[in-house]
Amino acid sequence: MEAGRRIERVLDIAVAHAEAPGAPPRLAEAIRYAVFPGGHRIRPRLCLAVAAACGDDDPAASDAAAAAIELLHCASLVHDDLPCFDDAPMRRQKPSVHVAFGEPLAVLTGDALIVLGFETLARGTARSPQRLGALLGLVARAVGSPAGIVAGQAWESEPEVALSNYQQAKTGALFAAATVAGAAAAGVSPLPWRLLGECLGEAYQVADDLRDVACRQEEIGKPAGRDATLGRPNAALLLGMGGALERLKRLAREAIEVIPACPGAEALRAEIAAQTRLFLPASLAQEALV
Amino acid sequence: MEAGRRIERVLDIAVAHAEAPGAPPRLAEAIRYAVFPGGHRIRPRLCLAVAAACGDDDPAASDAAAAAIELLHCASLVHDDLPCFDDAPMRRQKPSVHVAFGEPLAVLTGDALIVLGFETLARGTARSPQRLGALLGLVARAVGSPAGIVAGQAWESEPEVALSNYQQAKTGALFAAATVAGAAAAGVSPLPWRLLGECLGEAYQVADDLRDVACRQEEIGKPAGRDATLGRPNAALLLGMGGALERLKRLAREAIEVIPACPGAEALRAEIAAQTRLFLPASLAQEALV
Repeated sequence: MEAGRRIERVLDIAVAHAEAPGAPPRLAEAIRYAVFPGGHRIRPRLCLAVAAACGDDDPAASDAAAAAIELLHCASLVHDDLPCFDDAPMRRQKPSVHVAFGEPLAVLTGDALIVLGFETLARGTARSPQRLGALLGLVARAVGSPAGIVAGQAWESEPEVALSNYQQAKTGALFAAATVAGAAAAGVSPLPWRLLGECLGEAYQVADDLRDVACRQEEIGKPAGRDATLGRPNAALLLGMGGALERLKRLAREAIEVIPACPGAEALRAEIAAQTRLFLPASLAQEALV
Repeated sequence: MEAGRRIERVLDIAVAHAEAPGAPPRLAEAIRYAVFPGGHRIRPRLCLAVAAACGDDDPAASDAAAAAIELLHCASLVHDDLPCFDDAPMRRQKPSVHVAFGEPLAVLTGDALIVLGFETLARGTARSPQRLGALLGLVARAVGSPAGIVAGQAWESEPEVALSNYQQAKTGALFAAATVAGAAAAGVSPLPWRLLGECLGEAYQVADDLRDVACRQEEIGKPAGRDATLGRPNAALLLGMGGALERLKRLAREAIEVIPACPGAEALRAEIAAQTRLFLPASLAQEALV
């Protein structure tokens, strides 16, 4: 099955568990609304691509890893959009969850998605139970404290922020989780795969900064220019558009260079090149990655 | 080691992981603040008591189950206290997390505690990795959607609420998780242990309703009379104090009767009797459980 369809299918099955009989109907609706329709599903695609490169000997386990990572990403979007953080009215071209369902259900939807992410890992590793501990640890590390996306968001509440800690935790950690969890799901030692994820996470952060500065709301599905408004660090503001595009190109090249030796290395290189092109909207991508 | 000390120790180790170098200092502080000092630790005590009754052949696994359940309980308290839910100024005799640290860090503290709960399960099952999947599934079921504490809280956002769904999810689920996870951590089939947890969860809910109606803020560490103020169902308001005390007595007796056959059944019966006496403050307990 093609990766995109495979991801939507496994996410649909995971969300269906949360909607089972007895669920509060509006919570169930809000959970589905937060997950579908998705963005480019970059993180789960990356996870499946690494699993495939490593042999993908238990597709249910790699499906679960990919779905868990996307569910946790969706959870972070729902909570980051809350009034006490970004107070974002739009996400993925539609009203954000707290605008559509109210703040209480937005908090609970994020919570439920975190739980569902871990639950999905357990369900998907029935055939390879000995892989669950490593997968859970790798995914939890990318999400919690001290260095996951929750910690990344928490740096915004500190009087002083180490910029690299902030970006590594807020964006890099989940990309790194996508590569290491893809390897672990396929029964391969995860550690050598971390650097690829970190490179791609940094590249994605630079691309996100470029989008924030250069694009209109309609192109990115959320308000543009938020970093300047909120006083947040932004590579395109720091380095200029040209400098940031150069950096993005360099990181995309580096990512391809650091792919560990594996049965499917060649296909993975092509896949990574294609994925990094998706980091930017068409108008910027031509310029950036030629 | 005595159960109370054992629980504080394992919670301390779990929280220390979230405070590791690189953590945002205020997030780390808020996580510790949300977990210590605790309440009666009723759920983890119950979990350890069941594990002991079942042989407790891997104490690290039962420690992890008990800690995970308490961390997830603490997470739910932090989020339930938020302005968009109960807007509670006090919890466990001190300002609630959002009052002490602000709303953004309160949201993130709850998130981090959910992640830490699952992470703790993975860390504690290194010796019995084949038990992790069941433990994770049992704990996740008690927390997420359709029937865990998140769903319980979400029923407050529905136009119509099935009272039994609401209370079973909001309070009963985590008690049931404490008993089934205690059994699963000791390598014993968890299903026969669910009824004990459900009885105790219902008993605890009635006791909580009694506390809300009959006690002063100083005794329960949070504002009294909230259920009437917020229009929430309350057994003491529905049945009267006498009726609610009768129901609590009956449930405490039933709990002891439904304990499955196991090596440590006798000690467990005594432990359950002692624990249910802790459900009420001294002033009410004399009356209720003589």
